[in-house]
Amino acid sequence: MSEVRIHNLSISLDGFATGEPQTLEAPFGHAGERLHGWMFATRSWHGAGGSEGADHAFAARNDHGIGAEIMGANKFGPPGWQDDPDWKGWWGPNPPFHTPTFVLTHRPRPSVEMEGGTTYHFLDATPSEVLGQARAAANGRDVRIGGGATVVRDFVAAGLVDHMHLVQVPIVLGRGVRVWDGLEALEERYDIEATSTPSGVTHLTFTAKQRSDQPDEG
Amino acid sequence: MSEVRIHNLSISLDGFATGEPQTLEAPFGHAGERLHGWMFATRSWHGAGGSEGADHAFAARNDHGIGAEIMGANKFGPPGWQDDPDWKGWWGPNPPFHTPTFVLTHRPRPSVEMEGGTTYHFLDATPSEVLGQARAAANGRDVRIGGGATVVRDFVAAGLVDHMHLVQVPIVLGRGVRVWDGLEALEERYDIEATSTPSGVTHLTFTAKQRSDQPDEG
Repeated sequence: MSEVRIHNLSISLDGFATGEPQTLEAPFGHAGERLHGWMFATRSWHGAGGSEGADHAFAARNDHGIGAEIMGANKFGPPGWQDDPDWKGWWGPNPPFHTPTFVLTHRPRPSVEMEGGTTYHFLDATPSEVLGQARAAANGRDVRIGGGATVVRDFVAAGLVDHMHLVQVPIVLGRGVRVWDGLEALEERYDIEATSTPSGVTHLTFTAKQRSDQPDEG
Repeated sequence: MSEVRIHNLSISLDGFATGEPQTLEAPFGHAGERLHGWMFATRSWHGAGGSEGADHAFAARNDHGIGAEIMGANKFGPPGWQDDPDWKGWWGPNPPFHTPTFVLTHRPRPSVEMEGGTTYHFLDATPSEVLGQARAAANGRDVRIGGGATVVRDFVAAGLVDHMHLVQVPIVLGRGVRVWDGLEALEERYDIEATSTPSGVTHLTFTAKQRSDQPDEG
């Protein structure tokens, strides 16, 4: 069966995947772009002239083999986007997803077809319900959990994630949304590797000891 | 002037330097010895036959040039040790400090001279007050802040630390004492390096941009 993957979720040393407050002008709050500078410097993002070392190798895995994305309401727009019937995400008319994209929100609206293969679907559902729909839409390819931190936590806590890649950036944010809350003893379910790179970040990869399509019989 | 240093403070991925509850039987609570296994495997700790790679290189810096240690009450003993007039620390008659050792406690008691050069002094004082006494006692050598996490946080927040070495261990503890609280924007005061090693841990070093003996005039 297809896998469920998380890529390039950048966190501070103290575990925050975003700062606060999140607004239209500052989607990551006081964190600004500091969590993502490492990625902007890679060829995956910057194109020719970008770095092609370990940061690029990790960043480039984001889209490979992905057939659907699931994201939370806080990734799709600033607080209150549900009150704006014209809001269609941060990413313009041709979003970078190019697949069915499922947005979790307590206030669903009709699906919106964008250019380039992205169709937004809005659901008020549990992680396992939305994953069922995303898997069907992905047509055999993998499903990416796109964030933010709250949605990542929920899917990992529910045991639905096969592979998670976090990127720890050497800043201390002090406040925001913390990715670790509720994930005690994660090392019992995942093999964890740490790889620090010359840019100063540390890539943390979590590989499930038990695949999500092979539930524990024990 | 002498420097103020922190070495080998092990933390979980979610930033906890100890688990809970801390007791006589379990000084690190539910963390057990999992935070320190990396260190036990090195030559610094294990002696001949221990590893001599990067983990050893970092661990071995702990004692070099140190003339005094400062520790918190929670490192010196289990909760309530102040009620036991015979409690003289976890480390037996010949403790591994071999220098004057200042224990911060709200219930001071007379100093105790141990074997091997360790003398425990008990103080109810601010970080900068105890550092003044420790510096005088260190006789030109450096002062180590020995932990726990609360004391480390207090000294770093007060701008009194020149060098800090944390070791991030790939476990998620979920609860305990978190080292990061109150240290927002630490990257503005320290150059930070991350070094992951084959044992799976990541060494984080913080080097003050401004030495503690050269206060900012700005």
